[in-house]
Amino acid sequence: MAARAGDADVNDELKADLVRVAHLVADAARPETLRLFRTAGLMADDKGQDRFDPVTAADRAAEAAMRAVISRERPSDGILGEEMGATDGSSGLTWVLDPIDGTRGFLCGTPTWGVLVSVADATGPLFGLIDQPFIGERFIGGFGQAEVRGPHGARPLATRPGRPLDSAIVLTTFPEVGTDIEGRAFHAVASRMQLTRYGMDCYGYALLAAGQVDLVIEAGLQPYDVHAPICVVQAAGGIVTDWRGGPAHHGGRVIAAANGDIHAQALLILRDVVDA
Amino acid sequence: MAARAGDADVNDELKADLVRVAHLVADAARPETLRLFRTAGLMADDKGQDRFDPVTAADRAAEAAMRAVISRERPSDGILGEEMGATDGSSGLTWVLDPIDGTRGFLCGTPTWGVLVSVADATGPLFGLIDQPFIGERFIGGFGQAEVRGPHGARPLATRPGRPLDSAIVLTTFPEVGTDIEGRAFHAVASRMQLTRYGMDCYGYALLAAGQVDLVIEAGLQPYDVHAPICVVQAAGGIVTDWRGGPAHHGGRVIAAANGDIHAQALLILRDVVDA
Repeated sequence: MAARAGDADVNDELKADLVRVAHLVADAARPETLRLFRTAGLMADDKGQDRFDPVTAADRAAEAAMRAVISRERPSDGILGEEMGATDGSSGLTWVLDPIDGTRGFLCGTPTWGVLVSVADATGPLFGLIDQPFIGERFIGGFGQAEVRGPHGARPLATRPGRPLDSAIVLTTFPEVGTDIEGRAFHAVASRMQLTRYGMDCYGYALLAAGQVDLVIEAGLQPYDVHAPICVVQAAGGIVTDWRGGPAHHGGRVIAAANGDIHAQALLILRDVVDA
Repeated sequence: MAARAGDADVNDELKADLVRVAHLVADAARPETLRLFRTAGLMADDKGQDRFDPVTAADRAAEAAMRAVISRERPSDGILGEEMGATDGSSGLTWVLDPIDGTRGFLCGTPTWGVLVSVADATGPLFGLIDQPFIGERFIGGFGQAEVRGPHGARPLATRPGRPLDSAIVLTTFPEVGTDIEGRAFHAVASRMQLTRYGMDCYGYALLAAGQVDLVIEAGLQPYDVHAPICVVQAAGGIVTDWRGGPAHHGGRVIAAANGDIHAQALLILRDVVDA
């Protein structure tokens, strides 16, 4: 279940400082992303060989702004960011940043991309934020906090109780999911559920933490895609693992579940396909 | 091209009144939808026989509130609403309402559903709004207006200029699209495009009007799904037709395009599959 004990090593004063800095980091990304969101002529670079992988000027500007805050406020911490790679630290803590998770959604103008900010120790992620600058919505998880703050106020986050697969909702980002076998495994789960929705990127984990949906299943993730979502979902009472029930914070195949019951049901089906 | 001449019959005073009332109608739906959006235990009724077709209490309450405004402000106009059917009028004008377009998205908590308000005469839709209450965003089109108002201010709407299919973006709501042949026709277009995204409902038409994407292709639509999007997209310089280039406001198979060039390219491909 990827249970974690890292919290025990972080005292209250340090926790408060990490929370403070995490919000500053997310705040710094907002103007950089919004400055270019929905501007005409926004062009995507193509980083990949085979796949369309847009990276915008907003992505880079936001990560630079986020790194500047960390360098100023917590110069001994390490940083792992999507755009600018890894910067070593000496504190044992690493900030894991995705300036725009969901760059394709960003390019399309959908309000479902997010800025991901989290801080990890050697055992995994400790505290994280999923921020949606256009809506002005921030999902917060870790150190005993589980809350969303947005245009209609603040609300506690709590995942849904168990329910049968055939009355449950699964989200993912695109129908292919990943490799051929990963796609088949996903659809083996999805075909037994009431409703499948696409196109959510990190926002899907936020909705799971908010008690709206039951599962998010993805593949091919990077650590920076999943650290902050792990914090938010676990803080809200959910479970995030890889498709074998092990730790998810290294990325790859990830399943986030509202509760242990639906996690177990979905994991059985995924394994059946992947191990066949 | 579904060119329309209806505007000529509507004088400036009447236009101003219709615009005023359209905003009042959309305003009335906001508290009714937001009261239930993201509340735990929101249950969906199942209206359909075979398909999951959620209708929420919010849907019904919002339409009742919208109808109350029209009955008070323009008692001689007719009303066609998703939830409560058709009410005849004597003015020759009909309000076409979808209190929550994208009820599945609403159930999942995604901020991509919308309240659709439009007014039509015998020739088709004249003026329409796509309103997203959670974000507080309203896309306005018709009577010479093409504008979005939202949390970051007001901006004019204008669709994108032409570009090749392989550098263009298509949106739809779900990968199956409709019947088997409709799905194949959609994917024949999508496979030639740079990017395909799902899950947007009416918000896809709003993004097209905002110049973010090039095509929205859907099937199985009702008139109330498409009247307001037609107004907004056409006002922004786009084209909305059925898959043969005829009028789209009766629903069914709908294609919205940023410009005539990409409309023609996509229409050829759709017809090839549908007529095969």
